[in-house]
Amino acid sequence: MAVEGEPTRVMVAVNESTIKGYPHPSISSRGAFEWTLKKIVRSNTSGFKLLFLHVQVPDEDGFDDMDSIFASPEDFASMKHRNKIRGLHLLEYFVKHCHDIGVACEAWIKKGDPKEVICHEVNCVRPDFLVVGNRGLGPFQRVFVGTVSEFCVKHAECPVITIKRSASETPQDPVDD
Amino acid sequence: MAVEGEPTRVMVAVNESTIKGYPHPSISSRGAFEWTLKKIVRSNTSGFKLLFLHVQVPDEDGFDDMDSIFASPEDFASMKHRNKIRGLHLLEYFVKHCHDIGVACEAWIKKGDPKEVICHEVNCVRPDFLVVGNRGLGPFQRVFVGTVSEFCVKHAECPVITIKRSASETPQDPVDD
Repeated sequence: MAVEGEPTRVMVAVNESTIKGYPHPSISSRGAFEWTLKKIVRSNTSGFKLLFLHVQVPDEDGFDDMDSIFASPEDFASMKHRNKIRGLHLLEYFVKHCHDIGVACEAWIKKGDPKEVICHEVNCVRPDFLVVGNRGLGPFQRVFVGTVSEFCVKHAECPVITIKRSASETPQDPVDD
Repeated sequence: MAVEGEPTRVMVAVNESTIKGYPHPSISSRGAFEWTLKKIVRSNTSGFKLLFLHVQVPDEDGFDDMDSIFASPEDFASMKHRNKIRGLHLLEYFVKHCHDIGVACEAWIKKGDPKEVICHEVNCVRPDFLVVGNRGLGPFQRVFVGTVSEFCVKHAECPVITIKRSASETPQDPVDD
């Protein structure tokens, strides 16, 4: 037990704030990250490797880019490029923090339905466990928004730990994050 | 992050083997324990404190003690005493292992419905997270046996991580553990 082999590989699913937008992490994902460092990694910075996955949901309606003018195919390419840059800025937040405290990490972006993509990436990357934040919504609110964490607990092929947002950090509209 | 404060308090719910009986731990709870040491505690033995909870289900039919003769109230007292001793032998397995590798721990026994009692103890003891083993039964098998881990994931007031039994450790009858 005293001999440290390969580090424990912890996948952390992260997303952007619904209030502040990119590059700010959501309250839940920041909380899950900080919890992992404080309660699991602790001072054993060489014993863990964090794997940050950010899943971007493709715009279904394009409303995000309402203020853009689309006059050529290149405009669409630049929109996609811009989204990617935003995702990278989000990941930078986590990677920089890990770098500052000396915890090894990797980070990457995928597109699709977050819950499906997270479970798919678990299958590919085979982390030792997955950490997901959770807004701690009540059953009534959950009916409308669904929760990524519940899906992952059921379907991800690795142990999953769900970190609920603390009551003190819940915004006025609890669906916000 | 480098300064270690209070150790992370990890509650581990443990039960006896359905095949070998006391004092042998179930395959699931042994697996959850070993996973916690290997993937979370690692070499940081002073950073964690393990809290072992064993919940004994009261005999509803007394079949466990069919071979006993009950002639006086004291006979019932001795039966209860014997059950407690069995539970202690189970806990000894885990406590001894922790002692050998230098991880602080506590262990205690409660009686009742395991899933309800585990959640109740979480409320009293306030661990940082709870680890529960899981037999990894399919949906059809789960209908008949229920699973403690699913209940705890939904109802325990702390983060919960469920460690599934590996396929290689599954006994001939997967309901056995």
